Amino acid sequence: MADLIGETRLDAWLEERAWSRRGEALEREWSFGDFAGALAFVNAVGGLAESQGHHPDITLHDYNQVRLRLWTHSAGGVTENDLELAERVDELQ
Amino acid sequence: MADLIGETRLDAWLEERAWSRRGEALEREWSFGDFAGALAFVNAVGGLAESQGHHPDITLHDYNQVRLRLWTHSAGGVTENDLELAERVDELQ
Repeated sequence: MADLIGETRLDAWLEERAWSRRGEALEREWSFGDFAGALAFVNAVGGLAESQGHHPDITLHDYNQVRLRLWTHSAGGVTENDLELAERVDELQ
Repeated sequence: MADLIGETRLDAWLEERAWSRRGEALEREWSFGDFAGALAFVNAVGGLAESQGHHPDITLHDYNQVRLRLWTHSAGGVTENDLELAERVDELQ
């Protein structure tokens, strides 16, 4: 079972990123020009998720918005796996 | 602006379908063998949404689950467009 990230490290990471903490998870929201752009992003995230073996909750909503929610169920919160996937997702942009 | 579906017609429709009413929207949940299966379904729904010009909220969650939420913003509830898209989605299976 992966270890939860310490509060100090997580706070420092969050200060440098556009992600927020929401309960046990990290969340970030993106806006695209249209539905097709949002769906392409969902697929790119899906490819990363498969390659990392770590799968976020993905919501495509309000036509062109995508929200990701990332956490590690088995650990009950945010682990290094989550930060790594979040950083990879940020590199997609 | 599209008309809301009457209660009688909507109740009859819901009795024949695996969709539920949740607030102003129709919702249905699917479970797939894995993440890739769930993502393929999301893309199939996306194709229908584009061809109908009507876009549901789509959540891929818990690795292999997909939830659709369908309603017509401009009408503040469920219209014939929603039932039509729901029926097309059901035909995907």
